[in-house]
Amino acid sequence: MLALRVANKQIAVENVSKPERADEVLVRVLLSGICNTDLEIARGYAGFNGTIGHEFVGVVEESGQRVVGEINAGCGKCDLCLGGDSRHCAARTVLGIHGRDGAHAEFLQLPSINLLAVPDNIPDEHAVFTEPLAAACGILERVTINSNDRVAIIGDGKLGLLCAQVVALTGASVLLIGKHSSKLRIAERRGIETNTPKLAAKRKRQFDVVVEASGSATGFSLALELLRPRGHLVLKSTFHGKTELDAAPIVVDEISIVGSRCGRFAPALDLLKKRAIDVDSLISEEYPLSKGVHAMRRVGTRGILKVLLRP
Amino acid sequence: MLALRVANKQIAVENVSKPERADEVLVRVLLSGICNTDLEIARGYAGFNGTIGHEFVGVVEESGQRVVGEINAGCGKCDLCLGGDSRHCAARTVLGIHGRDGAHAEFLQLPSINLLAVPDNIPDEHAVFTEPLAAACGILERVTINSNDRVAIIGDGKLGLLCAQVVALTGASVLLIGKHSSKLRIAERRGIETNTPKLAAKRKRQFDVVVEASGSATGFSLALELLRPRGHLVLKSTFHGKTELDAAPIVVDEISIVGSRCGRFAPALDLLKKRAIDVDSLISEEYPLSKGVHAMRRVGTRGILKVLLRP
Repeated sequence: MLALRVANKQIAVENVSKPERADEVLVRVLLSGICNTDLEIARGYAGFNGTIGHEFVGVVEESGQRVVGEINAGCGKCDLCLGGDSRHCAARTVLGIHGRDGAHAEFLQLPSINLLAVPDNIPDEHAVFTEPLAAACGILERVTINSNDRVAIIGDGKLGLLCAQVVALTGASVLLIGKHSSKLRIAERRGIETNTPKLAAKRKRQFDVVVEASGSATGFSLALELLRPRGHLVLKSTFHGKTELDAAPIVVDEISIVGSRCGRFAPALDLLKKRAIDVDSLISEEYPLSKGVHAMRRVGTRGILKVLLRP
Repeated sequence: MLALRVANKQIAVENVSKPERADEVLVRVLLSGICNTDLEIARGYAGFNGTIGHEFVGVVEESGQRVVGEINAGCGKCDLCLGGDSRHCAARTVLGIHGRDGAHAEFLQLPSINLLAVPDNIPDEHAVFTEPLAAACGILERVTINSNDRVAIIGDGKLGLLCAQVVALTGASVLLIGKHSSKLRIAERRGIETNTPKLAAKRKRQFDVVVEASGSATGFSLALELLRPRGHLVLKSTFHGKTELDAAPIVVDEISIVGSRCGRFAPALDLLKKRAIDVDSLISEEYPLSKGVHAMRRVGTRGILKVLLRP
């Protein structure tokens, strides 16, 4: 089968054998989505070699059931796994990220416990957003947001646009901060206020919660400026490299900085089923899997949002 | 009156006039404590010029009532102040730190709302610890600690020793991490486990909460190593300068970093009244206020804990 693979910071579409673990479910991939994390992995982040990709919708080869799949596969034996949440299992593998071949392939495998059936009324092109939408919903697992809160989202990329829409559903007042008017326009069509970083920077200490989804050190600094004392900064993106931290304002203003990674899939599927989130506007391009290397290059291009691969 | 003052990074005991604001209470200082923050202010942190010092016990000159005083004086008009908590009032002054002369002096002034009567059974030498003990208690305002939690405190200085004792009272299992056996011994006498940073570093991902009270970048790094996924790092000390932040582990392990500054005085006075905290062991030396410059130098000396000044 074809698979988009990374080896020693080189990417290529290769012909590899189908996965064949007897204890896991074989899924034929219908559509996969390229995440910025895929780009980082291709550059060597996380030291992963193998098939990349962790956003997908597929069908169980044996039953024909259409599914999406949570990407963390736990050991099944530790307290976390037994508690029903393997996202922080120390022995976990992660689809296309850590110790497990991923979704930019004709087939993938996951434990059956990871798979969720996709309701019929969700088209493939929406279902493929379940993973990043779940990540956006994960914010609400980490901080409480009330309808009278003022929330700023920094970053108008795919993740920022999903985060802004998810947070807006809480009834909180949301400001999406970004540099790309065409991307901001997507949020504006949903009634979400937007602004450039430069103009937003004038609203110092006015936000209860700031979500950093730009993955840049300047986004982190801006977030600290925008927060009121005792406000919450949700780190949704990892940075490219290190940033300088001045701890003094965090202590003096008693800021909370909260990391947020993967969310549960059920709330995301529920939102897609209700058509509560505009994901259509996030789809920029689609390529056959065989053009995966080109597609990866397109993701890094200005103005491009989600790029899909079809095996 | 005599006062220990900072001007342009120079400290000196000077003769200045008594404070005389009609709308505030005049307090004759009985004893003041030198905090490491005083050293930082003397080096230029916070850009403060004036009388330093924010830990004290005194008597109200007019009534003879023995008092301690919360150090943040709010505007009295904003939502925070009207809500009874001026600690984050944007227009606040802070005793000996920001816009207000401090406690290393024969007299100081504070608004009456800031003063708390000291119960008779608390000696002056204990009451003078109310402010730093309140700061330690402030941890519990910022994170929930349960009796089955594993908590590490990094730093065996005055603040770390107070934090360890306060957290131990919750019933949580506490490990105090420091480099000075004589200081660690103080915690050990209270039944608190201790360890060196080198040995503690072997206990990776084993702690639910880590309190950083060393004020060093290495303490911050160690804290991140010790925390379990979704653990809480309480930043109790500001750093000297900046440190490098690698956001990836904070996002991947979904760590919370929580700044903590001033605590309320009432819980601290209550603990002192019950003799629940050993502060006697923290007193290293006492000097007359006139020797304030020498006393400041002593605070920076290895092995020295609290140095008190008596006007």
